[in-house]
Amino acid sequence: MCLRYARRMTIDNRAINTDRNDVLRLLSSDVDIKYLNHSKNSRSLLVSRYLSIVSAQLFKGQISDRPAETTMATKHLSGDSVEPPKVPGLYRFYSMRFCPYAQRVQLVLNAKGIPHDTVFINLSDKPKWYLDIFPAGKVPALIFDGNFLSESLLLADFLDEQFPEPPLWNCSPLQKILDKIVIESFSKVGTAFYKLIFTSETVEEINFNELIASLIPVEAELAKRGSKFFGGK
Amino acid sequence: MCLRYARRMTIDNRAINTDRNDVLRLLSSDVDIKYLNHSKNSRSLLVSRYLSIVSAQLFKGQISDRPAETTMATKHLSGDSVEPPKVPGLYRFYSMRFCPYAQRVQLVLNAKGIPHDTVFINLSDKPKWYLDIFPAGKVPALIFDGNFLSESLLLADFLDEQFPEPPLWNCSPLQKILDKIVIESFSKVGTAFYKLIFTSETVEEINFNELIASLIPVEAELAKRGSKFFGGK
Repeated sequence: MCLRYARRMTIDNRAINTDRNDVLRLLSSDVDIKYLNHSKNSRSLLVSRYLSIVSAQLFKGQISDRPAETTMATKHLSGDSVEPPKVPGLYRFYSMRFCPYAQRVQLVLNAKGIPHDTVFINLSDKPKWYLDIFPAGKVPALIFDGNFLSESLLLADFLDEQFPEPPLWNCSPLQKILDKIVIESFSKVGTAFYKLIFTSETVEEINFNELIASLIPVEAELAKRGSKFFGGK
Repeated sequence: MCLRYARRMTIDNRAINTDRNDVLRLLSSDVDIKYLNHSKNSRSLLVSRYLSIVSAQLFKGQISDRPAETTMATKHLSGDSVEPPKVPGLYRFYSMRFCPYAQRVQLVLNAKGIPHDTVFINLSDKPKWYLDIFPAGKVPALIFDGNFLSESLLLADFLDEQFPEPPLWNCSPLQKILDKIVIESFSKVGTAFYKLIFTSETVEEINFNELIASLIPVEAELAKRGSKFFGGK
């Protein structure tokens, strides 16, 4: 049953209606680790899914992390590709579909209804044209009025200020910094996530347990707030 | 002459009227590295001085990084100390005099004229009472209305929102994220700085050169902006 769940969630990354508790059940210790080893893709996407569901819970309301219909490429562009032409009136968003940092910005773009197109970057074989404009070659990034902007948390704050509705943050500065401290502490989840994905071919129990341990304070914070959401209004 | 300059600037950390160009001259390649080796303290303070001068240049105007007169301890408190009692009406600020991250928050507190007292923490022998309230034991931190807040950049933004005058940021969201990207890239200076200070007893030329290299984009950005200041209004 667990494997079926994992497949449904991970093969179709667009199925946003997955509940966080489904993913938590999959990640919890009563799941046989061999299911997660079924394919590298499914374990990567499973955790990525959890991260984007948790990110979505920074807001109140239904938010999709599905790329907008205006996506300029259905696959991730690599080394010798050509940059798709920009469309007037749309902001250009450089992304990678399974990167939780890119998904964080995709969520904000969607929540705010900001007209944009998305170009996916193959991070294992970065396009030359992308390295020309951004030598660090990272995603997410955004072209805004001719300016090249990067860093997911900075982008989220920028979009929130440039497009104030709906607001992402509680209007109290004190609650806002308390929420930001939660996000800051969330970086431990990211570290554990990438260790799980990239340091071995199959899931190592020690890395798996580190990821679970990193999620405990996140779940505890949600429980403390007595809500499915970290913030928003 | 260089050494005299360094001593004047570094022994009295309160001499805010030192010009950035004086420090740059000291840090530039025509300074014999043996001067910087004169004492660990002087090279640490020299670079710390540069960092706080550059931080001050995020603002327009004269801002002192001198601790407020209400400092509760003249020395850094260690393991078996007792926390100085809090004074009603003052925000409690935990700092370390020569930490550039703590100085960043001190600058903001001073710029805004926020009533506070400062308690210095000995980071090599952290007070037990401090570890009880903040297991990570880092500075800077602030007690605000009973909440324990940390992380220098988050604190700077929080104080700017809670005490809006004078504003720290340009009011354009676009200029604000461009400034934040500069600050983000500034983290390379911090990394190089700590490598210089902590990885060897004397100044290693390779570390010294890495620090100088990390400062070049900072200076280039100031030149590009045609101003002694990164931002502010």
